[in-house]
Amino acid sequence: MSETIRVVVDAMGGDNAPAELVKGAVQAVQGHDTIHVILTGDQDAINTELAKYSYPKDRVEIVHCSEVIQTAEPPVNAIRTKKDSSLVVGLQMVKKGEADAIVSAGNSGAILVGGQAIVGRIKGIERPALAPVIPTENGCSLLIDCGANVDAKSHHLVQFAQMGSAYMEHVLGVKNPRVGIVNIGAEEEKGNALVKETFPLLKECSGINFIGSVEARDIPAGVCDVIVCEAFAGNVILKLYEGVGGTLIHMVKGSLMKNLKTKIGAALIQSSLKETLKAFDGSQYGGAPLLGLKGLVVKTHGSSKAREVTTSIYQCETFKKQRINEIIRDYLAAD
Amino acid sequence: MSETIRVVVDAMGGDNAPAELVKGAVQAVQGHDTIHVILTGDQDAINTELAKYSYPKDRVEIVHCSEVIQTAEPPVNAIRTKKDSSLVVGLQMVKKGEADAIVSAGNSGAILVGGQAIVGRIKGIERPALAPVIPTENGCSLLIDCGANVDAKSHHLVQFAQMGSAYMEHVLGVKNPRVGIVNIGAEEEKGNALVKETFPLLKECSGINFIGSVEARDIPAGVCDVIVCEAFAGNVILKLYEGVGGTLIHMVKGSLMKNLKTKIGAALIQSSLKETLKAFDGSQYGGAPLLGLKGLVVKTHGSSKAREVTTSIYQCETFKKQRINEIIRDYLAAD
Repeated sequence: MSETIRVVVDAMGGDNAPAELVKGAVQAVQGHDTIHVILTGDQDAINTELAKYSYPKDRVEIVHCSEVIQTAEPPVNAIRTKKDSSLVVGLQMVKKGEADAIVSAGNSGAILVGGQAIVGRIKGIERPALAPVIPTENGCSLLIDCGANVDAKSHHLVQFAQMGSAYMEHVLGVKNPRVGIVNIGAEEEKGNALVKETFPLLKECSGINFIGSVEARDIPAGVCDVIVCEAFAGNVILKLYEGVGGTLIHMVKGSLMKNLKTKIGAALIQSSLKETLKAFDGSQYGGAPLLGLKGLVVKTHGSSKAREVTTSIYQCETFKKQRINEIIRDYLAAD
Repeated sequence: MSETIRVVVDAMGGDNAPAELVKGAVQAVQGHDTIHVILTGDQDAINTELAKYSYPKDRVEIVHCSEVIQTAEPPVNAIRTKKDSSLVVGLQMVKKGEADAIVSAGNSGAILVGGQAIVGRIKGIERPALAPVIPTENGCSLLIDCGANVDAKSHHLVQFAQMGSAYMEHVLGVKNPRVGIVNIGAEEEKGNALVKETFPLLKECSGINFIGSVEARDIPAGVCDVIVCEAFAGNVILKLYEGVGGTLIHMVKGSLMKNLKTKIGAALIQSSLKETLKAFDGSQYGGAPLLGLKGLVVKTHGSSKAREVTTSIYQCETFKKQRINEIIRDYLAAD
């Protein structure tokens, strides 16, 4: 029999809570026999949603919580004071080993702070890193770090490269993933102080396939599999990606609705265009893991629908099966 | 009679040199009576191109140069050793006051290094800043700095905000331009050390319309007119903008060519889509000025066609007429 995986789903976090979170959790247990889901949050609200579905009841559990951390709350304070929130209770379960992982679409800052403060870091990892998957022309790349800890040092970036490699290879199945560092030019002598300091360390680092500097221009074409950068740059890349994509798609759609002629044209290209744009949507790869913690914490988009929640739960399953944290520990031991 | 403006065009720089450079220069003198162009580069090659057009000969001058700085050459060395290159000779003319401005589509690093080393900075400006205009959904924004000087300090960023404001207001005609600083969240307490240090300085800075932090996600929608950031982030933003835009447009075009049905649809939407994508093309605003120098240095895309060259020359004209450098000096005096 396969190993069971226990995943907490923060049922109260995100724009579509609890409905889409519960639906996503139900779909995950329906899809994979080995998944056991624990929904944290308001029992009544969760039960109302659960009543809509038929599912294996022995693999869906509710842990009632009386509090919710809102999206706009200051993270540190929220984690400290709302001990009975769906997020904090869920993180505590991961810490205690009562669950393997937690998926939350809630307050990003609180997830990052809580993940570090409650679940705790793998020994030797100085900074956990948030590593979303971004779409590229022919697949996807892992962008690490987009977390809350800005102003990282060079040795942190080396750990990001190692953790990102382990994740891309063993969770997303990319053989010998190409690791690049975000830089302002392709030449080794270019860059800011941090990049110049990190570059030789990555070159020397065994166990990763370092290909050198990558320019932001080449990221969407899929120039490498693991994109290493400091969190400020990572955040800019992640958000600009969404921003430029969103604006361009909005403009293209506007140009299709301009007049009768373009509307007829739009009808003819609709399905092909839709398929193309779907390929350029990172949410199909699940949420962003916070790598380097003793358990797995996955942050999904605040606007996540059931599908992304289900995918994120499957992602937790692969993460556990592939023993990613053991691989990360091996990297640290080899250093 | 209007004031004459003398603009050097580096006829040998860029992918389309000298043909498009010469053509752009000719179009500029044909368009505006007050423009005098000096083409630096190989006399024979330039004359061959000039022979294709009829134009006011008294306003087009050639200064022969025996050398060319190639795109891939290390900038500092190129500027130091190639004294008779079309770029260095042109920069020297600006320095000596024989020309008001220079437009080059050549080696970016050499333009930045040469601009600082040869033309020289305005007294009080510690770092000149490269400030390209990027397209937004409803217009454009100035992104400052995208230059070669990474790891800037907070007071440099304040000067970038002042120079960028002067440029947006007086060259691009944006009244009371909104200045934002690139950050990883909208709240004042967020950011890396540099942003946290710069934020209060921008708040206190008189003469600019500081609106606070802007997230990269909101840049394409046109959240502010002057986007202030350190050069590493600026470079990432500029290049990712091009990269995501290029990849998405390529994917959309691919989806249009998929089968007969989509091809018919494509024919119906073609002109509307083309117009939309044209609006999202920054090159219509000319090249990127290197602000803070005693004369004006404008860097255009390496792939510039005649139209961008002409626009860049007109941009130099407005820059001089509006006495941008005097406005920048006034800002410095007020500090």
